Amino acid sequence: MFIILVYDFNERRVGKALKICRKYLHWVQNSVFEGELTKANFVKLKMELSGIMNEDEDSVIFYIFRSKQYTDRLEMGLKKGGEELFL
Amino acid sequence: MFIILVYDFNERRVGKALKICRKYLHWVQNSVFEGELTKANFVKLKMELSGIMNEDEDSVIFYIFRSKQYTDRLEMGLKKGGEELFL
Repeated sequence: MFIILVYDFNERRVGKALKICRKYLHWVQNSVFEGELTKANFVKLKMELSGIMNEDEDSVIFYIFRSKQYTDRLEMGLKKGGEELFL
Repeated sequence: MFIILVYDFNERRVGKALKICRKYLHWVQNSVFEGELTKANFVKLKMELSGIMNEDEDSVIFYIFRSKQYTDRLEMGLKKGGEELFL
């Protein structure tokens, strides 16, 4: 499946959240990640995020697609994420 | 077309950005919006956001689909946005 993940974590936990998400997905921009995931890895990702999140302060939203099927992705302004950071 | 918008604005401008985005889209969560837009309104939305954004500090990402076709949307944790705020 293809996943777009957007998170909003308190700054005390955002570093951990970033590290977890980057294990499974590509970092697109600041709080946005995307990528292909197996069902098993999607379960693992959700479990790892649950383990660090404070449900009263943090949030995560997943858009789940059968395949990568968006027509286009358009970015305006600063590009904070990006795969160049994997180098 | 169906749009998912994610933004990251400096707090000095985020109130204005929220107001603009809510004119055109549904507020899903904190910095995430979605909805059906005509091409003309998409152009207007981009122009309004360009008008307030600082390209060195702020960012906006649009995912563009021909139609609303995600399989599922899953939310974890705090729900900050939401249509209840339109009431």
